[in-house]
Amino acid sequence: MNVVEKGRSRHYRTVSFDSETNEVVLIDQKELPHKFCLVRTAIFVETARAIRDMTVRGAGAIGATAAYGLAQGVRAFRGSSLPRFLEQVEEVFGTLKAARPTAVDPVNAMNQVRKAMLVGETVAEQQSLAMAAAEEFANEDVEHCRQLGEHGAKLLRNGMNVLTHCNAGWLAFVDIGSATAPMYAAQAAGKRFHVFCDETRPRCQGATLTAWELAQQKVSHQVIADNAAGHLMQRGKISLVIVGSDRTLGRTGEVANKIGTYTKAVLAHRHKIPFYVAIPLSTIDWNLKRGLEIPIEERDEREVLGAYGVPSARDKARAAKGKKVQSAYIRISNPGSGAVNPGFDVTPPELITGIITPVGIFKPRDLWRFRQKLGWH
Amino acid sequence: MNVVEKGRSRHYRTVSFDSETNEVVLIDQKELPHKFCLVRTAIFVETARAIRDMTVRGAGAIGATAAYGLAQGVRAFRGSSLPRFLEQVEEVFGTLKAARPTAVDPVNAMNQVRKAMLVGETVAEQQSLAMAAAEEFANEDVEHCRQLGEHGAKLLRNGMNVLTHCNAGWLAFVDIGSATAPMYAAQAAGKRFHVFCDETRPRCQGATLTAWELAQQKVSHQVIADNAAGHLMQRGKISLVIVGSDRTLGRTGEVANKIGTYTKAVLAHRHKIPFYVAIPLSTIDWNLKRGLEIPIEERDEREVLGAYGVPSARDKARAAKGKKVQSAYIRISNPGSGAVNPGFDVTPPELITGIITPVGIFKPRDLWRFRQKLGWH
Repeated sequence: MNVVEKGRSRHYRTVSFDSETNEVVLIDQKELPHKFCLVRTAIFVETARAIRDMTVRGAGAIGATAAYGLAQGVRAFRGSSLPRFLEQVEEVFGTLKAARPTAVDPVNAMNQVRKAMLVGETVAEQQSLAMAAAEEFANEDVEHCRQLGEHGAKLLRNGMNVLTHCNAGWLAFVDIGSATAPMYAAQAAGKRFHVFCDETRPRCQGATLTAWELAQQKVSHQVIADNAAGHLMQRGKISLVIVGSDRTLGRTGEVANKIGTYTKAVLAHRHKIPFYVAIPLSTIDWNLKRGLEIPIEERDEREVLGAYGVPSARDKARAAKGKKVQSAYIRISNPGSGAVNPGFDVTPPELITGIITPVGIFKPRDLWRFRQKLGWH
Repeated sequence: MNVVEKGRSRHYRTVSFDSETNEVVLIDQKELPHKFCLVRTAIFVETARAIRDMTVRGAGAIGATAAYGLAQGVRAFRGSSLPRFLEQVEEVFGTLKAARPTAVDPVNAMNQVRKAMLVGETVAEQQSLAMAAAEEFANEDVEHCRQLGEHGAKLLRNGMNVLTHCNAGWLAFVDIGSATAPMYAAQAAGKRFHVFCDETRPRCQGATLTAWELAQQKVSHQVIADNAAGHLMQRGKISLVIVGSDRTLGRTGEVANKIGTYTKAVLAHRHKIPFYVAIPLSTIDWNLKRGLEIPIEERDEREVLGAYGVPSARDKARAAKGKKVQSAYIRISNPGSGAVNPGFDVTPPELITGIITPVGIFKPRDLWRFRQKLGWH
């Protein structure tokens, strides 16, 4: 998507690869929305670090980063010994996999690259195939988001107010995004609508990343406290909800997503507001048999006890001097008090109007019936 | 309630009066939870300022502050001319009323003081009556909270997890609080339970004030993001919800309270978790005929776009030097994005299990039937 820099709009992918320098190029999401900058990783261990430290986050984006990281690592091999080369492949694979151990996307992405690569008969050939496969993976991610957007755009009508939660935008993918894809497609088709971004405590990805994205694309939007959605629905101010998902169970239609998603689904159901989940096919888990089996990560309590942001006075002073404005942590809570911080929740299928995918929109309980079409394996 | 200072526990009211120096004594709630300190206002304009700038907040607390402020103002009058004295009374009344124009409690409190005072025949007599009436108002507030707590305590059983939203604790009243009163009474009766405090964005009164209060009283508690309550309910981890109210409609049983309350009520209803509202009688509005008539204050968007807290590094450094740690505002959101910030929402009676009052627990739709008992006028 496009980023506005010094009044000029320029296209960027969240993740891309510079094959001349063998560098992975990432939008630095730790700095957003306070500063837009690109990070280049020169070797695969740096790429793994960028995944681990959240420079890049979001299912599709870390999948593509791992795919590129694998290509980068195997391309750095000097020599022609295939056995020694394959040792290097496994080392790179293991390092990138360990960077985000609970995520499934990097592993799937790297499996795809490795499978394509192993067809080659020489080191040089395999290196070249790895590069092509990584590019293909990234391009597929973009294409899937685009298709998903076309299907989802039909749901948006002029004058609608759309609610979204967290960031399932282009920053979470290589480009376009999942929950945002229908919005961008509808906007391109000339539709006019307004988006409410849940701030999405505790990490506030809605207030930071989604709001930043929508601002770059000039989509009309406002941030709301997570507490405000119920009131807005009660007063008839929300017409549609679209969220993303970290894992959707193909057998049951249950959707795991950022904490707070379930609450919005319950509210939407009470107010008979359509509630959609937008996902690429890679998000579907065909194995788990019930939502309670999905591990819910318990995150650091410091996230709840405080917040990340830019001290506003310092911000102005530093910006005036042309200096980098770095975000800082502040403690909000009572010092002696602890917190519980579940990272995700699970929304049952009866609260979900439809699942928007690259191959069409499905009732959540129909995913299993259409599993062939949905890439079941 | 008691405040722990340097390991020693000492009793404080949120609002009190020093009749020797004619000063109103307030716990400075702007500094909590980062620092506990008392503020003394020497003249009524300072008292009005303390109400306006949120040094003191919460229905019962600002009511008592206004009552004391009125007594303070009339006691400062020098002379014996009754007409000139009554001019001063009106000036003080008007100044204190204007400090929080949408609140009803300061006006009700001052009306009570003025009515009692005007019985006196001389300036000195009226000054003395005003003082006594203000003290009586404050003591009544405490007694009502105590009675409410006794009724509500019956709802708490050993091993329960109680959810509360925002701060309807003793800091919002002269002492004891409304939503917290049943907890303190149950604790005094030896019951063991755990409290989850919604952080209550955007102002985070749950993470700051309620958590601080509960810590002082050694009530087991944890802060949660507003997004987490639904998940915890789904997993069976919440057994009871108790919140306060800013205005409860006596004719319909609708409850206006801090934004996000409605959401918690919808979630509790889905999970068949009892949802109670604890209120002193002064919170009941006998006039309005429907919840939609309750004005919902649209607050400054900066509250949503950022947060108040203490930069943790600076905090440590300053505290080490024995310096005052002052809370600062940080911007969280994307700089170019705006926000919507409704301050309150309205919960309908069908989502409320009961209203806990000083005279017993009532079904919300029964308030009107029992209006005589509930102080209807």
